[in-house]
Amino acid sequence: MNKKSFASDNYAGIHPEVLQAIIEANTGHVGSYGKDSYTEQAIEKFKEHFGEQSEVYFVFNGTAANVLSLQALTRSYHAVLCAETAHIYTDECGAPEKFTGSKLIPIPSGNGKLNVEQLGDYLEATGEQHHSQPKVISISQTTEMGTLYTPQEVMAIAEFAHQHGLYLHMDGSRLANAAASLGCKLRDITTDVGVDVLSFGGTKNGMMIGEAVVFLRNGLSEEFKYIRKQGMQLGSKMRFISAQFLAMLKNDLWRRNAQQANEMASLLAKRMQKIPQIQITQEVQANAIFAMIPSEYIPVLQESHFFYVWSEQESVVRIMTSFDTTSENIHRFAEEMEKVCGLQ
Amino acid sequence: MNKKSFASDNYAGIHPEVLQAIIEANTGHVGSYGKDSYTEQAIEKFKEHFGEQSEVYFVFNGTAANVLSLQALTRSYHAVLCAETAHIYTDECGAPEKFTGSKLIPIPSGNGKLNVEQLGDYLEATGEQHHSQPKVISISQTTEMGTLYTPQEVMAIAEFAHQHGLYLHMDGSRLANAAASLGCKLRDITTDVGVDVLSFGGTKNGMMIGEAVVFLRNGLSEEFKYIRKQGMQLGSKMRFISAQFLAMLKNDLWRRNAQQANEMASLLAKRMQKIPQIQITQEVQANAIFAMIPSEYIPVLQESHFFYVWSEQESVVRIMTSFDTTSENIHRFAEEMEKVCGLQ
Amino acid sequence: MNKKSFASDNYAGIHPEVLQAIIEANTGHVGSYGKDSYTEQAIEKFKEHFGEQSEVYFVFNGTAANVLSLQALTRSYHAVLCAETAHIYTDECGAPEKFTGSKLIPIPSGNGKLNVEQLGDYLEATGEQHHSQPKVISISQTTEMGTLYTPQEVMAIAEFAHQHGLYLHMDGSRLANAAASLGCKLRDITTDVGVDVLSFGGTKNGMMIGEAVVFLRNGLSEEFKYIRKQGMQLGSKMRFISAQFLAMLKNDLWRRNAQQANEMASLLAKRMQKIPQIQITQEVQANAIFAMIPSEYIPVLQESHFFYVWSEQESVVRIMTSFDTTSENIHRFAEEMEKVCGLQ
Amino acid sequence: MNKKSFASDNYAGIHPEVLQAIIEANTGHVGSYGKDSYTEQAIEKFKEHFGEQSEVYFVFNGTAANVLSLQALTRSYHAVLCAETAHIYTDECGAPEKFTGSKLIPIPSGNGKLNVEQLGDYLEATGEQHHSQPKVISISQTTEMGTLYTPQEVMAIAEFAHQHGLYLHMDGSRLANAAASLGCKLRDITTDVGVDVLSFGGTKNGMMIGEAVVFLRNGLSEEFKYIRKQGMQLGSKMRFISAQFLAMLKNDLWRRNAQQANEMASLLAKRMQKIPQIQITQEVQANAIFAMIPSEYIPVLQESHFFYVWSEQESVVRIMTSFDTTSENIHRFAEEMEKVCGLQ
Repeated sequence: MNKKSFASDNYAGIHPEVLQAIIEANTGHVGSYGKDSYTEQAIEKFKEHFGEQSEVYFVFNGTAANVLSLQALTRSYHAVLCAETAHIYTDECGAPEKFTGSKLIPIPSGNGKLNVEQLGDYLEATGEQHHSQPKVISISQTTEMGTLYTPQEVMAIAEFAHQHGLYLHMDGSRLANAAASLGCKLRDITTDVGVDVLSFGGTKNGMMIGEAVVFLRNGLSEEFKYIRKQGMQLGSKMRFISAQFLAMLKNDLWRRNAQQANEMASLLAKRMQKIPQIQITQEVQANAIFAMIPSEYIPVLQESHFFYVWSEQESVVRIMTSFDTTSENIHRFAEEMEKVCGLQ
Repeated sequence: MNKKSFASDNYAGIHPEVLQAIIEANTGHVGSYGKDSYTEQAIEKFKEHFGEQSEVYFVFNGTAANVLSLQALTRSYHAVLCAETAHIYTDECGAPEKFTGSKLIPIPSGNGKLNVEQLGDYLEATGEQHHSQPKVISISQTTEMGTLYTPQEVMAIAEFAHQHGLYLHMDGSRLANAAASLGCKLRDITTDVGVDVLSFGGTKNGMMIGEAVVFLRNGLSEEFKYIRKQGMQLGSKMRFISAQFLAMLKNDLWRRNAQQANEMASLLAKRMQKIPQIQITQEVQANAIFAMIPSEYIPVLQESHFFYVWSEQESVVRIMTSFDTTSENIHRFAEEMEKVCGLQ
Repeated sequence: MNKKSFASDNYAGIHPEVLQAIIEANTGHVGSYGKDSYTEQAIEKFKEHFGEQSEVYFVFNGTAANVLSLQALTRSYHAVLCAETAHIYTDECGAPEKFTGSKLIPIPSGNGKLNVEQLGDYLEATGEQHHSQPKVISISQTTEMGTLYTPQEVMAIAEFAHQHGLYLHMDGSRLANAAASLGCKLRDITTDVGVDVLSFGGTKNGMMIGEAVVFLRNGLSEEFKYIRKQGMQLGSKMRFISAQFLAMLKNDLWRRNAQQANEMASLLAKRMQKIPQIQITQEVQANAIFAMIPSEYIPVLQESHFFYVWSEQESVVRIMTSFDTTSENIHRFAEEMEKVCGLQ
Repeated sequence: MNKKSFASDNYAGIHPEVLQAIIEANTGHVGSYGKDSYTEQAIEKFKEHFGEQSEVYFVFNGTAANVLSLQALTRSYHAVLCAETAHIYTDECGAPEKFTGSKLIPIPSGNGKLNVEQLGDYLEATGEQHHSQPKVISISQTTEMGTLYTPQEVMAIAEFAHQHGLYLHMDGSRLANAAASLGCKLRDITTDVGVDVLSFGGTKNGMMIGEAVVFLRNGLSEEFKYIRKQGMQLGSKMRFISAQFLAMLKNDLWRRNAQQANEMASLLAKRMQKIPQIQITQEVQANAIFAMIPSEYIPVLQESHFFYVWSEQESVVRIMTSFDTTSENIHRFAEEMEKVCGLQ
């Protein structure tokens, strides 16, 4: 592939520090299924970031992190409230429904975020046996629209959830991008503002493979080891996932990678804003840009750069940067846009 | 871990050629979810080994390879016939039942193998609405008892299955060990003797992570991509699994690794046979040894070498070798046994 | 209960002819699980009404008729398209998701009906592994809003479905009311206009208990007996459900009952239309009236007559008539409304 | 059907007192889904029989009573221990696995009963993530082999269960026969000896339709109403099931019916014991007889009397009596046996 890709942050490879960690972990025999010192150390690192009470379980991918989190929090007659744009609602081929048996209830949202005002309407049937019972609110940080929640916004939703006997789950496949953008610690937008269970992403931020389910509140994870095993997500040579997380959480690699991706998106957005034919449709708060581009320009741009059309009808595209996007990549793409739009 | 482990072949790490393949695949951006040239090439390699008609899907672990294979072949009112020792029956925390909804029917088996004579009894309720309907026979090659099926034995079961409208699934997490032991090609004990769907193992034979579901017969895999995605087993940076398989299937690495493990087991077994207090209880056909060892000797041996007690009651242990077990390891372990048994 | 109820057609009891049929079926021993002559005869009656090719299975309730119908037509990675008001989406406590594993996709609809124009939008992700694949369109006849589809409207949806490789399921818990209202045969709005599978209601139209899953097209029901049994819906003393259906389908009892309910709704609607404070919000096509009534009047009316508030916010109520509603009941209720509204 | 049936107690019809109760309940409109006075009264009756703390939920059939009971007590990674002859293991077409996701573990048992000695072996993997975790012991009273547990035997199993953090479920589809045979109250072999949840049978003992899930211990049923609804087992015209149970539990009809069935089995067994060619193979403790009959006699006997062959290989048949079996029926059947065996 010669074209630099802006399709998704999972088109990128493995960050060199992560790859080095895999190589270094490849020494002799260690216990399988997580009984190894790499896993122990990685778990300790998670506790440093998310608090001593945290319970961490590594899984293979983001679908699993989300689905198994929800499985831990629900029974089949429960419902999960989420934005209609949520990855769990739109992009998991029905895995949450299949595995939990629960109903996912999509809530309209223009920018990918939920707010407390909307949520009340969805609790009206509480206690009625004919209706799935809301038990979890699931939010994405950053959202699938490239926006993010402030700590205050998360806290407001957490308080609402807890007042009504619900849990707050966060799909944090891009949590690092949110924390980097907000300039805060990971726990500032999770543990400390009331999130109960977190899917913490590694793959999109420079790992080869691996996500984590992080229980931030006590008493929720007691039987999770069975859920993970039955959920087909217990890795035998787990040290190689653990070593990657260790590399990410040491020396702030998670933040460096996310920051790079965010800054590149910001840089590109600034240049795009100057192109009159292009209209950015969502606030650029992390590493995604959503923009309306005249439909005739899109295939021309796609000849040199990969990116996805988000909405054919509205001619909106999604552009994503990743940890390895360079400012040179950005400038070349911006120049291409300007050229196509007749600015050069 | 200083002690050399004979606990399981998944205590071993990554074979250097496999690790090298991961490193070499880490170049720039490629398509995610399998739209990359590594995956294309790996799929081609599978077709070389298993026949052009093969359809291959990579997943993360063996539980998933088995469960999703069964999911493709069954509906929830079906039953799967398997040995009572089968990994799918005993060691998946109920994942097959959870995910497929089907019933697993355990068939008594001393050596881990099924035979046609037994199977007939389990088809008596065919057509009766009160009973789960057998639809799949699942066999393990090599078995969980370290034994293996000859091509003729597999073929006999396949013919039985097909005569009765059933599918034959093979849990081949150690298929390489079987083929190496039999000195045959992979297809000689799968495609060419009637296996319908195969779980092909990579992790236990030197990969970091990755197993494959291989459909050996046409017409079974049409909607499998949805089963894999919904089954939480679609890797985003799939190239890194594909590259590993490519390394395994090129230059016969799969066979070299399996052969080494097998030979080491054979070597150890020979020395153990000379120790009067030790009795080998299963034919040693691949990389596992089951042996009765006086119970007072076991903890002493475990001080220097890891291995599992298979049956506390019968004082039977399981010893497994792996691709990186050396003859030096074997001789040291054998000497330790002799010493403990008072032979030195 | 002294108050005459307009809450739901399932507040009514058993029609005398149906009860008589139960009594007459209570003679000695017959085969269980449907191996009896009542069941044979009832199945024959269904074939008379829906065509010789029909395959009929009796179940206990409407939830089951719908869920098992969908189970027969889907695999877990499929999606079912339905109106957001559909009973399967709103009132089954998530039973369809739990049992089929599939995703239900709610389509906005003011009057409870779907149309072909909307449906196209929901097929855009066909073939994409990340998304649940639409496989069934489910419509309700009559709808949950008291409206109905003409034969032409059903046919248009059926053609759309079949062109796109989807099935058409009809929730006909009130199919009798639709046929009575349209003055047509049951098959005119089902078999003959392309419905694939029908949930045919008995309970709401005068039976004590019993619904039917009717496969109207060949080749869909081959393994349904297992789905019903595993779905916990195989009645042992089935003759008593069969005898009820026999009573319903002989001598047009199904039509007489439905017609009475429809006419009573029509009669009430006519009188309500003359009350200026009341506004009927949905076309009254069967046995339900949806009306906006000033909120202060509602509790007063509920003192003498049971009915449900449909929307607190919009002050809309639902009034349902049943086979045993009399014109005297209607006039008394209408007079009460007039009195409360100050017209008397 | 002219032949008197000894095939199953569900070949019988409705007891006249039960039918009368249905007829009397058919008066006007009442609340649906259990909001009616019949249901209230029936629940009160259950509390009289099983203790004030009991929580009762009516469902349609025995499969559902069992499956939903287990659903209330398990999560998908749990296992249910039961006799290999248990109805839940052999005759529900996999409904328990499908609906609960759990594994059913069959325990060898010649007479259909479990005992504490065996059970210990099945708890060895407690706490191991690779194995389904036993959570429920399910016993049948009377068993599928026509035998029964004494109160002391039930209590021993209950104590074992509770010591190990397990629940005790009883499949009591023929509980009435057990209590009648033991001459005890219903609670003497359930509530008072430690059963946690009971499936209480109605259909086989003279009802038209209806079984009950009875929670005998506090704190287990809080969300069961959702399980029942989602489990497709919430009847809309529930009064007609409730009225039947009311009839059964008033005036000891449950005991009178069961006693009649038991006595008839006992009577027949006595006569069969005198026939040298026939060998009764299970203790006749309730309303079933298992007997070895020379295989050439079986089809001859089946010409005049329906009964099932239990084991073709061993030439064992099952003969069941029901509430409406008369001594005349018995004597005619016995005479037939004697004739066939050349005793007359």
